[in-house]
Amino acid sequence: MGWAEPRVVATGDLGVVVERATGSVLIVDRSEMAMLARVEGFGDLSHASLVFSPDERFAYVFGRDGGLTKLDLVTQSIAKRVIQAGNAIGGAISDDGTLVAVSNYEPGGVRIFDADTLEMVADLPTGSKTIGLVDAPGRRFVFSTWDDGETWIADLSGDEMQVQTFEGVGANPYDALITADGRRYIVGLFGEDGLTAFDLWADPPKQEKILADYGRGQQDMPVYKMPHLEGWALAGDRFALPAVGHHQVLWVDAQTLEELGRTNIHGQPVFAVARPDGRHVWVNYAHPDNDTIEIIDSQSGEIIHTLKPGPAVLHMEFAPRGHQVWLSVRDADRIDIYDTRSFEKLGEIPAKTPSGIFFTARAHRSGL
Amino acid sequence: MGWAEPRVVATGDLGVVVERATGSVLIVDRSEMAMLARVEGFGDLSHASLVFSPDERFAYVFGRDGGLTKLDLVTQSIAKRVIQAGNAIGGAISDDGTLVAVSNYEPGGVRIFDADTLEMVADLPTGSKTIGLVDAPGRRFVFSTWDDGETWIADLSGDEMQVQTFEGVGANPYDALITADGRRYIVGLFGEDGLTAFDLWADPPKQEKILADYGRGQQDMPVYKMPHLEGWALAGDRFALPAVGHHQVLWVDAQTLEELGRTNIHGQPVFAVARPDGRHVWVNYAHPDNDTIEIIDSQSGEIIHTLKPGPAVLHMEFAPRGHQVWLSVRDADRIDIYDTRSFEKLGEIPAKTPSGIFFTARAHRSGL
Repeated sequence: MGWAEPRVVATGDLGVVVERATGSVLIVDRSEMAMLARVEGFGDLSHASLVFSPDERFAYVFGRDGGLTKLDLVTQSIAKRVIQAGNAIGGAISDDGTLVAVSNYEPGGVRIFDADTLEMVADLPTGSKTIGLVDAPGRRFVFSTWDDGETWIADLSGDEMQVQTFEGVGANPYDALITADGRRYIVGLFGEDGLTAFDLWADPPKQEKILADYGRGQQDMPVYKMPHLEGWALAGDRFALPAVGHHQVLWVDAQTLEELGRTNIHGQPVFAVARPDGRHVWVNYAHPDNDTIEIIDSQSGEIIHTLKPGPAVLHMEFAPRGHQVWLSVRDADRIDIYDTRSFEKLGEIPAKTPSGIFFTARAHRSGL
Repeated sequence: MGWAEPRVVATGDLGVVVERATGSVLIVDRSEMAMLARVEGFGDLSHASLVFSPDERFAYVFGRDGGLTKLDLVTQSIAKRVIQAGNAIGGAISDDGTLVAVSNYEPGGVRIFDADTLEMVADLPTGSKTIGLVDAPGRRFVFSTWDDGETWIADLSGDEMQVQTFEGVGANPYDALITADGRRYIVGLFGEDGLTAFDLWADPPKQEKILADYGRGQQDMPVYKMPHLEGWALAGDRFALPAVGHHQVLWVDAQTLEELGRTNIHGQPVFAVARPDGRHVWVNYAHPDNDTIEIIDSQSGEIIHTLKPGPAVLHMEFAPRGHQVWLSVRDADRIDIYDTRSFEKLGEIPAKTPSGIFFTARAHRSGL
């Protein structure tokens, strides 16, 4: 290849790393284990997340300050940016890739935008902080309210948006997950024991309380960081759920939603993420244990390996077929890359206070 | 951007359509519902299939004549082509994207190639036609032999390739599937009733006979076309298996591998493919019923819709998040695109005798 020809890079193995303190992101290449570009101007990226367009060209970055920014991985620049609310937390993209939804604390509610233009197409004020926003198949978005304990389903498949609301979900929903098949929406509760699960295949959706014996209990435990529920905690025939406050991972039967057991772990879990094949679950921890990763065998529930990558391991992202995992080590200003079978470190990439790592393969999955 | 800088092309929503009679392929764009290019020179593409590189830039096309061709979706041209055997059937790519394996009838066996250069790195003669070649996590390939009834596992994760062989798999394995989690490898048998399942999570892998009551039985039924087993037949908590010869789909419990029931269908099934959310299974048929598609509710087992797209519907490919399906209608020289919820036809694309349709999202999944 001569100098005059462009070097071609396809988007299937790219990723975006959030640099939380500087309002910037890195575009990275999984195959090369390398940074391609740093892009700046995203505002407040503390607790930021993002989703990808179906062609894996654009990332929609949800900033804490209500900024919704469309990043172009091809031109390595910001394509569009709007401030859509005062204080936001998370977003989702519809299964057809045409709608982007953002969950807001201030004003409380969900706003839905045209993925192309970022013009608002629907506004759903809830009068409450909204949490646990996910996409469901059929141009639907599902979310819950912290203050009122409600779950809402917005269906944008027809000419007119249809909204269903469900009350009595429980005290202070703090996060939720939807299973990859879009069937079950599971809400974590901060204000009472147990979780609430919806079967979205039932018509109307069926709501039930699960794991009633699990919770913070009567004891007022300190919680250093709320754990995240993620849509890919499915490990074989069971889910792995990080417990709030407890030093435990809960195992839940994926069909009956009954508890199968618990694994005692190193600290308060933040993420419990299944390797894509479901054989192992990787767990990271809240301060002061956030230098550690534990790896649990999903079938035996036993911890089979421990890693100490460095100070403040905030996030883990698996290659879509599971052979590698990338870790953000915030206080070392570094991304570490590990082989998921040998647990050997394969490489590292400098990054400024990295938090979330997101690979473009997410474009092809529901509920992330 | 200067010429020396990388040019990134979004490849996440592309696909490749095999034109079986002309040795050509179409590169298509899912989002635009359009053809981007026709590329020629692939040799004999009857019964051809392909896999994608992790960056979704290259497709490895497995021709019937033993041709292994590397298609570049970005430059829309053939990057490399080798004739690696006399008569081939199917291939696979390792989880890290570095190895491509091809299953051969003549000479019988599997050959493994460097994905970059297409140089052979391993040769596994079996003395038998090989079928059911799939990739498994950890740089492994699994395949079976038609004549000897064996299953082989080749592990290329270490410096030296390790091969395990299992005898007594049954009479005339004709195809196999591996579940998306890489745990279960299920072999269809033509010469006797039942199927054989391997649990690859067990050490050593555990082999058992399942569905012993299912099969062609004593009656010598005509079989117009052998059904395909596919790695994404998982529908919720069950698999859908197209029955050999029978006008039936079998439902199999995904955990116990016991039969849950059967659905009587329109003809001899060829593919039974679950919509990505698992709620519906779409079935196409062998001649003379191959103008028809039936859609089955995976929970009730009932047929909920019938389509008659046109003459000789050979293949179905879902958008990765399931909102659309593309059908090849061979004898109408056309690809049809349907909405998977309303069952409305959304568009069509001209194609010459189209057979397999493959979207780049497959790059991120195991066992396809």
